[in-house]
Amino acid sequence: MSYIWDSRYALRMKGITSSTIRELLKLTQRPEVISFAGGLPAAEYFPVERFQEACGCVLKDSAHHALQYSTTEGYPPLRALIAERLCQTGVCVDADNVLITSGSQQALSLIGALLINPGDLVLVEEPTYLGAIQAFSLYQASYLGVPLDSDGIRTDLLPEALRQGPKFMYILPNFQNPAGVTLSDQRRRELVEHAHHYGVPILEDDPYGELRYEGEPLRPIVAHDAEALGLGDTAYSGNVIELGTFSKTLAPGLRIAWIVAPKPVIARLVQIKQGTDLHTSTFNQMVIYEVAKDGFLDEHIANLRTVYRKRRDAMLAALDQFMPSEVEWTHPDGGLFLWVKFPQGTNVRALFEAAVQRNVAFVPGDTFFVRPDAPPTARLNFSCMDEDRIREGIRRLAETIAETQHASPTV
Amino acid sequence: MSYIWDSRYALRMKGITSSTIRELLKLTQRPEVISFAGGLPAAEYFPVERFQEACGCVLKDSAHHALQYSTTEGYPPLRALIAERLCQTGVCVDADNVLITSGSQQALSLIGALLINPGDLVLVEEPTYLGAIQAFSLYQASYLGVPLDSDGIRTDLLPEALRQGPKFMYILPNFQNPAGVTLSDQRRRELVEHAHHYGVPILEDDPYGELRYEGEPLRPIVAHDAEALGLGDTAYSGNVIELGTFSKTLAPGLRIAWIVAPKPVIARLVQIKQGTDLHTSTFNQMVIYEVAKDGFLDEHIANLRTVYRKRRDAMLAALDQFMPSEVEWTHPDGGLFLWVKFPQGTNVRALFEAAVQRNVAFVPGDTFFVRPDAPPTARLNFSCMDEDRIREGIRRLAETIAETQHASPTV
Repeated sequence: MSYIWDSRYALRMKGITSSTIRELLKLTQRPEVISFAGGLPAAEYFPVERFQEACGCVLKDSAHHALQYSTTEGYPPLRALIAERLCQTGVCVDADNVLITSGSQQALSLIGALLINPGDLVLVEEPTYLGAIQAFSLYQASYLGVPLDSDGIRTDLLPEALRQGPKFMYILPNFQNPAGVTLSDQRRRELVEHAHHYGVPILEDDPYGELRYEGEPLRPIVAHDAEALGLGDTAYSGNVIELGTFSKTLAPGLRIAWIVAPKPVIARLVQIKQGTDLHTSTFNQMVIYEVAKDGFLDEHIANLRTVYRKRRDAMLAALDQFMPSEVEWTHPDGGLFLWVKFPQGTNVRALFEAAVQRNVAFVPGDTFFVRPDAPPTARLNFSCMDEDRIREGIRRLAETIAETQHASPTV
Repeated sequence: MSYIWDSRYALRMKGITSSTIRELLKLTQRPEVISFAGGLPAAEYFPVERFQEACGCVLKDSAHHALQYSTTEGYPPLRALIAERLCQTGVCVDADNVLITSGSQQALSLIGALLINPGDLVLVEEPTYLGAIQAFSLYQASYLGVPLDSDGIRTDLLPEALRQGPKFMYILPNFQNPAGVTLSDQRRRELVEHAHHYGVPILEDDPYGELRYEGEPLRPIVAHDAEALGLGDTAYSGNVIELGTFSKTLAPGLRIAWIVAPKPVIARLVQIKQGTDLHTSTFNQMVIYEVAKDGFLDEHIANLRTVYRKRRDAMLAALDQFMPSEVEWTHPDGGLFLWVKFPQGTNVRALFEAAVQRNVAFVPGDTFFVRPDAPPTARLNFSCMDEDRIREGIRRLAETIAETQHASPTV
């Protein structure tokens, strides 16, 4: 029998391949491996009791609503709560500026559907979030990378890039995944000016912004844009789409995130979402609302900050103690990741394999680049294990580096 | 300020418009309207207590797992349960033939992404499910409609249609939405032969199959295909993708459905789903599994059959009693819908508006056709209200028909 399917796949599938890194990372699932490769929040700090109460309450008072079909836009009280929180950063939005999505990954996918024609350029930071590339590639995007430094994307390089005509810019302003850097206030203003000047909108993805461990919070790009456009007290209608999520602050397993955008853009996204999954789970939206409301979300975020700050500090201290002097790393003010730079010529894939042999894992940095000649780098996650384990993992990693360098000296 | 967004939308958005019918149906949300327009399961029969127990159990025993990220493929015990149930119909599948999706709407969308290039023809029944058209249109499909009769799609017309080269056939074999008809056993075999002969795969969408109120269950198309291809005890690898859901048998608000397909097809769909929403809610998958397991699903389905049978019978009896003799309707053996045929020349949109004035609503049948010259028809839902309300609604509808015919006689 000839196999009927292969010849019938759509053209877009040519760009969708199994990520080699995901295959590699399957090697790191063994319990004896200390894995800095994931990006998981700390499960032991999930607010389980609050979730129990919330589920009980929703199923006691509103089961017929919670278990039924609902509107594509999302649960109105949850949309209002999200709008209210964003208003505090100085941008005027209401519930109709908010669309609830099934995780931020769906938000990225809906926006890809809205904006990307096959071959369209998307401007991304280099390095950038792999999941965004996966989402956009389904719409056959091409990529235009602009480098980061310790203050975020190099805005001085933007005009040249924007003249190449990207459809939009994809920016992670806070504690960037993977690089851990934060876009400075000055650069946020410059970014907004460039967006306006060249007519190229910004997709601001902010999953980690509330997980800040030091320094003062910066205003989101969307708030800078509202100010620059002088939108004042009218509902936001500028050049930015902003993404947020409860995955890092409450729990990822419920898949509740959101898009904030001008209302006509939300209306178009609703049409796409209707064909894509009708709506996000009614029950989960109601449960997340019950968990988040009455100030609990902020209380819980304050606890998480304490926990993750200690873990970040443990990783920074261990790197200081164990790493050879020629290895560098970023000092993230928040988020889940830290970015390591190895000396020129380091073979990071070989290092990865040697590290897994020693039961420690990380993500090789080239995974996050859209250009082929990525510098030798790695992403380390510090959120999902305790300080002792972090310290032991960094020790093993440093040992692996020392040994690998000995075996095959870098150029 | 010039509005930046309109000019930046992707080409695919041209095909995505607000459905006029959805706008019309907003008129029917008033509580005094008896609406046969929806497709909602009966909320008062949701197994709320069982859901309460399941949530309690999942959050007591497995909260760290349930609230965390999980694999794209889905929760293994749930995949196994679905495979096991399908095996009972005579097709050999295991958990790796199953992908959990966020509702069947997502299943339709993922399959659209997998198979449809812009302009590709999709063969559909006429009338067909509107949600499928919405899902496929996002991938810029064109449609090739083949009429139904009381035994389902006219298989005698298939060879001519298949020679036009559709990418796949989209078939609702049981208690079709909207027409309420069931594809006969003989035609299932013919369909499978045609698929094999012309090399055109079948997408079998079966949300209602377990809600049968009379007659014997028919084997799914996928089981006929396995038999015709002589696949025996090897895991299914034929020409059919089958969709199922818990939305109609347990509750739609959790958005848990599934795709059954050959394993290499599942692997490709997993890649798409990864970029689309990473995975379906871990918590919801575990809760649905806890609710469904140990025979509860079958017990609950048996109860629903009793409830919905009575409602169908009430609608059939009221139609018999009140409708003018020139109006015809289908007698569905299961599912949620009944299909009404008005005399040639009836202006169904005008009838709809007059009906809403009398506080009764339905979906005008032209909504479900891909060709412009749809016959005068309507879809009536009988699942979501009690018998008295059904009777009163049909009385009002019949009154409206009589009055409309009097006011503007049909040709």
